[in-house]
Amino acid sequence: MSKQSCLVIGAGDATGGAIAKRFAREGFETCIVRRERHLDDLKALAAEIGEDGGSAHAFGADAREEDQMVELFAKIEKDVAPLGVAVFNIGGNVNFPITEMTSRVYRKVWEMSCFAGFLTGREAAKVMIPRGKGTILFTGATASIRGGAGYSAFAGAKHGLRALAQSLARELGPQGIHVAHTIIDGAIDTQFIAERFPERYALREQDGLLHPSEIAENYWHLHCQERNAWTFEMDLRPWMEKMA
Amino acid sequence: MSKQSCLVIGAGDATGGAIAKRFAREGFETCIVRRERHLDDLKALAAEIGEDGGSAHAFGADAREEDQMVELFAKIEKDVAPLGVAVFNIGGNVNFPITEMTSRVYRKVWEMSCFAGFLTGREAAKVMIPRGKGTILFTGATASIRGGAGYSAFAGAKHGLRALAQSLARELGPQGIHVAHTIIDGAIDTQFIAERFPERYALREQDGLLHPSEIAENYWHLHCQERNAWTFEMDLRPWMEKMA
Amino acid sequence: MSKQSCLVIGAGDATGGAIAKRFAREGFETCIVRRERHLDDLKALAAEIGEDGGSAHAFGADAREEDQMVELFAKIEKDVAPLGVAVFNIGGNVNFPITEMTSRVYRKVWEMSCFAGFLTGREAAKVMIPRGKGTILFTGATASIRGGAGYSAFAGAKHGLRALAQSLARELGPQGIHVAHTIIDGAIDTQFIAERFPERYALREQDGLLHPSEIAENYWHLHCQERNAWTFEMDLRPWMEKMA
Amino acid sequence: MSKQSCLVIGAGDATGGAIAKRFAREGFETCIVRRERHLDDLKALAAEIGEDGGSAHAFGADAREEDQMVELFAKIEKDVAPLGVAVFNIGGNVNFPITEMTSRVYRKVWEMSCFAGFLTGREAAKVMIPRGKGTILFTGATASIRGGAGYSAFAGAKHGLRALAQSLARELGPQGIHVAHTIIDGAIDTQFIAERFPERYALREQDGLLHPSEIAENYWHLHCQERNAWTFEMDLRPWMEKMA
Repeated sequence: MSKQSCLVIGAGDATGGAIAKRFAREGFETCIVRRERHLDDLKALAAEIGEDGGSAHAFGADAREEDQMVELFAKIEKDVAPLGVAVFNIGGNVNFPITEMTSRVYRKVWEMSCFAGFLTGREAAKVMIPRGKGTILFTGATASIRGGAGYSAFAGAKHGLRALAQSLARELGPQGIHVAHTIIDGAIDTQFIAERFPERYALREQDGLLHPSEIAENYWHLHCQERNAWTFEMDLRPWMEKMA
Repeated sequence: MSKQSCLVIGAGDATGGAIAKRFAREGFETCIVRRERHLDDLKALAAEIGEDGGSAHAFGADAREEDQMVELFAKIEKDVAPLGVAVFNIGGNVNFPITEMTSRVYRKVWEMSCFAGFLTGREAAKVMIPRGKGTILFTGATASIRGGAGYSAFAGAKHGLRALAQSLARELGPQGIHVAHTIIDGAIDTQFIAERFPERYALREQDGLLHPSEIAENYWHLHCQERNAWTFEMDLRPWMEKMA
Repeated sequence: MSKQSCLVIGAGDATGGAIAKRFAREGFETCIVRRERHLDDLKALAAEIGEDGGSAHAFGADAREEDQMVELFAKIEKDVAPLGVAVFNIGGNVNFPITEMTSRVYRKVWEMSCFAGFLTGREAAKVMIPRGKGTILFTGATASIRGGAGYSAFAGAKHGLRALAQSLARELGPQGIHVAHTIIDGAIDTQFIAERFPERYALREQDGLLHPSEIAENYWHLHCQERNAWTFEMDLRPWMEKMA
Repeated sequence: MSKQSCLVIGAGDATGGAIAKRFAREGFETCIVRRERHLDDLKALAAEIGEDGGSAHAFGADAREEDQMVELFAKIEKDVAPLGVAVFNIGGNVNFPITEMTSRVYRKVWEMSCFAGFLTGREAAKVMIPRGKGTILFTGATASIRGGAGYSAFAGAKHGLRALAQSLARELGPQGIHVAHTIIDGAIDTQFIAERFPERYALREQDGLLHPSEIAENYWHLHCQERNAWTFEMDLRPWMEKMA
């Protein structure tokens, strides 16, 4: 295969990083993206990928800003390699009683978890449609399929992202582009869970937390599916987790 | 019953108007809302309701603007009557191939069909929670439960609105507030359909279009349900319509 | 309106009885059905309906037996009145760990909750199709939309019944027959709950149990919908109940 | 790994055969099952697997018969190897207008597509629970998630099977057993499609039919998932297929 790039929007958390590593291992030029202020962390991740024999390019960009996103895709196509895979992996899990939910937070969660996904999907579609191929993967959550007390913002954004993924799958599938959406229905093994939910984190010993590398394995599987048998949606949860 | 108000956000189209009429007929002080520039139409609707023996108050406001919404709810509570029912009925059906969907349109559809619904739900919750009662009704569509080619914006917004409604139902139900969501799965008998889709409009003769007054009848039914048997969601479609 | 009959299969429990009463109040010739051995209870219900000024006919029949069902529909059409409404309201809620679920129980639950529904739907369709009108209502439950530990039999049967209802709605809707399915997502105020779940029953004081008469009200509403705005599915639960 | 068996109920069609081959390639002792009368075909499949270096055991059994199923599982455990994987892959796609659907057909489709799945799941659970591990995979279809005109029997059985799979996943997941359900949402490249739907079959050239070997690849993937990230459900369809 000639060189192809794999873009990961939201490569800041453990999951995004693991996905980048997984695709880098297969020879993809990975393009990892976070906001400017996290550029040092991003460069550390790129270095780590490089040490493992992979290729990674760190980009500081705000995925909610159209100009920056348009520029990002142009740079990748021009300077790195044709885009083979785009992964949208930004979350924004918040919970507030409805009376305490500010319009600022409600809007911000949507911009991060949904609008940025729209920009990612659209820009990816623009370069993939003419080639008649490519893979676009969206990370969903329990909140993608059900609302919950306090989750108006997060569930709203995640439902919106799923509707985007489904709309793109229906439009782009027949044009040769594989669009898929995962439903991560459980806590992931991250620093965030370790610090905020120590009791839950203790389940890690019993495989009660999703490992980022296992999630990545499933993203790689989705990308590898032949076009005669594409998956749009699959859920992922630890064996001991109550199904949503 | 002492006087109560029924707010209808999006009383511009046939459905919103019919809902206002239905609740006015039952003695509600209806508060009908559209943007300023449609104030004349709104006043005509208020007059019509008045002639039928009902009571209607026209308010020009942009439901996407937090300040205007906060002010609106305050005015209703202060000048009209305690809010018994809030109906959110703004749509924003657009369809564009993903590569032609501008971020401006994508955002605007969300602001109209989802963010304005959040403001409505939140402000209604604020006045209803202390009283431990009230009804909040959201108008959904086929796009609330499935995406479609070209529907990334509309389905995204409608999915987000449904997630809001579901989150509010789970949070506010146990506080005595009935939150429900309808899925209008078919074309409504409106001027818009008559002008743009004449072939479809011809089905009107055979009851192939939803009548606004019938939709309103179902909203009234939802409001009347005793709290031992509340509906969160019901779909509505003409008999000849293919189920989504 | 000329005389019409309303058949209620499963008129043994509180819900079926309440539905029969509701339709009898509107002038329907109600035909209430249970197995032979409950004929005394059934006659008592018929007498009660009669005292309220309604008309009820008690039939002892096993809804799982094709011959008895075919005969039942023939008798109603011949001796009572043309069938306007058919309600299928048999449940069979059991819970066993999978290793303790016998094939006898698994099959019996399906025969009661699903196969009998098929016979009801088919026989109703046979008399309604030539007239191009009629209403067929199926009672569903939480288990209609989600499985649960120990619920392989009950959820299996209820999922099957929902698939039947949906298939009939798609086939018979365009022939003028209104097919609908309710999802009763909570405990009903019955003798069964009073005896077996006294703690839950105590919630009755706070409207924490569904009242059969309120459920019946919603069935009546479904029947009354004009054909330009038919509902296929609506859920019903007490205000304090966690949404499935 | 010490020897393990992989049981495939419904190894008559292309999909079941491909799944058996896939697991045989990984060293599983495959146990392939069809009714007695197809034993010759089954032996031919076993021979084919043997020629490829795999190991296959042909069993003639009717999966709807409890005695035969109990005996089958006992034989496998005693004579072949501990059961590591059980795949239920029997379909029964029929379509009849409701008035032409006989109770015989309705019941038979349920026995093949749902009741036999119950027996498979239960017997597999019995041997897997004490070991705290194992994989049980169910093959679903479009009809598992939506009914359709004429599909009361097939959709009913498939909905029931999905409810079974979901109930088992919730019960057995926390006991270390991975239960998953696939939704095959499109036509498979089989003799049946070639003969009955030649126009559809012509899409094969463009990858418009699911290849059995690709389906099998996804079953293998499900089995390989680490228990920290299990999938309950994934859909599979050709790129050009309209999403259900």
